[in-house]
Amino acid sequence: MKILNTKDKNFKDEFNKLVHRSDIDMSSVTPVVLNIIDEVKSQKDKAIISQISKFDRWEPKTADELRISTDEMKKAFENLDEPLKNALKLAFERIKAYHEQNKPSTWRIKDEHGNTLGAKFSPVDRAGLYIPGGKAAYPSSLLMNAIPAIVAGVRDIIVCTPAISGEVNSLVLAAMHLCGIKTAFKIGGASAVAAMAYGTQSIPKVDVITGPGNIYVATAKKLVFGEVNIDMIAGPSEIGVIADDSANARHIAIDLLSQAEHDELASSFLLTPSENFAKSVAEHVKTELNTLKRESIARTSIQNKSAIIVCADMPECINLMNELAVEHLEIATDDCERYLDDIKHAGAIFLGHYTPEAMGDYLAGPNHTLPTGGSARFYSPLGVENFIKRSSIIGLNKSGFHALSSACIALANAEGLGAHARSVSARLDE
Amino acid sequence: MKILNTKDKNFKDEFNKLVHRSDIDMSSVTPVVLNIIDEVKSQKDKAIISQISKFDRWEPKTADELRISTDEMKKAFENLDEPLKNALKLAFERIKAYHEQNKPSTWRIKDEHGNTLGAKFSPVDRAGLYIPGGKAAYPSSLLMNAIPAIVAGVRDIIVCTPAISGEVNSLVLAAMHLCGIKTAFKIGGASAVAAMAYGTQSIPKVDVITGPGNIYVATAKKLVFGEVNIDMIAGPSEIGVIADDSANARHIAIDLLSQAEHDELASSFLLTPSENFAKSVAEHVKTELNTLKRESIARTSIQNKSAIIVCADMPECINLMNELAVEHLEIATDDCERYLDDIKHAGAIFLGHYTPEAMGDYLAGPNHTLPTGGSARFYSPLGVENFIKRSSIIGLNKSGFHALSSACIALANAEGLGAHARSVSARLDE
Repeated sequence: MKILNTKDKNFKDEFNKLVHRSDIDMSSVTPVVLNIIDEVKSQKDKAIISQISKFDRWEPKTADELRISTDEMKKAFENLDEPLKNALKLAFERIKAYHEQNKPSTWRIKDEHGNTLGAKFSPVDRAGLYIPGGKAAYPSSLLMNAIPAIVAGVRDIIVCTPAISGEVNSLVLAAMHLCGIKTAFKIGGASAVAAMAYGTQSIPKVDVITGPGNIYVATAKKLVFGEVNIDMIAGPSEIGVIADDSANARHIAIDLLSQAEHDELASSFLLTPSENFAKSVAEHVKTELNTLKRESIARTSIQNKSAIIVCADMPECINLMNELAVEHLEIATDDCERYLDDIKHAGAIFLGHYTPEAMGDYLAGPNHTLPTGGSARFYSPLGVENFIKRSSIIGLNKSGFHALSSACIALANAEGLGAHARSVSARLDE
Repeated sequence: MKILNTKDKNFKDEFNKLVHRSDIDMSSVTPVVLNIIDEVKSQKDKAIISQISKFDRWEPKTADELRISTDEMKKAFENLDEPLKNALKLAFERIKAYHEQNKPSTWRIKDEHGNTLGAKFSPVDRAGLYIPGGKAAYPSSLLMNAIPAIVAGVRDIIVCTPAISGEVNSLVLAAMHLCGIKTAFKIGGASAVAAMAYGTQSIPKVDVITGPGNIYVATAKKLVFGEVNIDMIAGPSEIGVIADDSANARHIAIDLLSQAEHDELASSFLLTPSENFAKSVAEHVKTELNTLKRESIARTSIQNKSAIIVCADMPECINLMNELAVEHLEIATDDCERYLDDIKHAGAIFLGHYTPEAMGDYLAGPNHTLPTGGSARFYSPLGVENFIKRSSIIGLNKSGFHALSSACIALANAEGLGAHARSVSARLDE
């Protein structure tokens, strides 16, 4: 694993490459995706069936076959072995409890004139969750997308997931049962996004689409944004670790690999003030890599997209980590709490020696759908607020209205909006 | 003004047209906008200067001329007459006070194992506000975009606004002074959005772009979404009024016109259980129209995009209004409070006989940047949360880690992610 030092002459150039690690280039797939969306808009179910037949290695005859029954979900759940069933249940409960803490509440206040001001929060009517299939079919993705929608109080939750050769991953089916999903379809890729955005004879139009996916899914989500809301545009996963000599080098090496094993394009960064620690972690990465099931994926990621950076001191580690604005940030030091205030941009922050990022992926409680590629500078993790919206509340009383009227009329007139001014002055007369 | 009745045979068809009133078709301008974005990305300041020379009726010689000085802003503010100055100040204070109520706070809790879970909120580093020029140059737009960024604690707030013939609207300049804007540029349209999204020699790259604009601005915002965050994609303004015989028909007529005067494409809807009230409002609309400064705009909007709907009863009014999911919703009845719970989708809700929508446009306190065209089904008003993001916090202690470890390992193994499982099991050994 590459070791850089902030004192190196060419460090700034090398580091800039890491900052600008994200290059989701949608331009090449955009025409294909636009075409899929147009087909689904005009031919609806028929277009979806034809796209499945082309890409998913099975041929549904009617749209009914796209539907996943709640029986299938139930059976899949019942077939799980006990430890896994309990693990899923524990994850469900902890994720639910965390997201309930982050649910916004309707509020009202009175101003000094007794006027009512407030905000009312209400769930969207329908949410569409996209859950990838094939190699990256993860039950945890279902939990992490469904639970915030459930906590938000969404009435209809729709799931789309591709069924390669007609089969849906049984763990994903089990997770659907646990979440009480009633409506799910065997549809993947851009077709699924288009179907949920515009609706077909069989698939209801939703208000919000969330969930991970490949470049086709990401592009489709961007293209339907505005017709529906979407969560974020996410790229390959990544971890940044800040650690000093108080950390266990082998543990940190494995944490770096736990991101690297996701994807050849995943990135792992270690920033440390200790050169010895840096070397030791690099050694452990080498050793551990050899015994990983997903060795080849992880090796590519570690070699091409990852780096260890030796910094002058902890403040430099923090500053550079803020520039990287990583998805997962571990602070593995004895005094990790003291650095928390200085962290400005990170999707999720893992504190201390006993918080490997994997805990956050499954069951610590917070969402594992996090901003990638530096977008933690402006995106938040997926949450209840993706499935809920706010309405402002304004209720003026007669005297409160009078108190504000002349200022309102002055501003409306200054903007040349006469009916605006008149809507206030008319109420003064009578 | 057209009066429909829910008992009419063809009502459902007519109503569906109103529900699907939004048709922002970006496809025709997308190639032009993509081209502008590419030019700005590659030629930076030079591209901007050339685009201004083409469209804005002035020719900046250097990028320095694009900069709006804080002196200009100060002078514009000092030149305001006292009542307008005070009106702007009152608006500033009230909008600020409201938005402070809606600012999320960092929180931490402990789970039953003593593990720390929480969420940390931090502002984006840089926000870019787009403020239209020309006919729709409104100081209120500046206040409504700048104040949530100020309350969020954004370090650098950048404003771009077009200067037709080199001149910026003096009220907008005055509002910039009031908001303490330090960095502003005379740049409009898609160039401004591209400049703020990617940065140039003179214009800093931002993290979030907000603000209204024409179809070119909206398309550019959608295209740069992902590179930066954006607020929403907004279309023509609209109002929905629910009123019964307790309301003053002339006041409601003027309220409908106050949206209609914005834009030929604006929509105004009145839903009422009283046929007499419907007729009376239609009469008043006719009369008031004749004396409006912006008569021709308002007339087109009223004739083509607006309707009065006579409903069977109040519950039907509420249900249909939820389907319309309007930007501004007035409930002008004596008992308006009792309907509030049933309102599911609306950008802002105006309660009672003394709350004309204009009050919300200027100084009630809530933001006037609201979701349009039915997108109140999934978007919220602009707010502090557009300029702030959340980071999850997870800090496990040794015993809390042990309590969760076997479930985490089971889930990681089920997903085939060996390094994830190992990152937990390794910490158990040592």
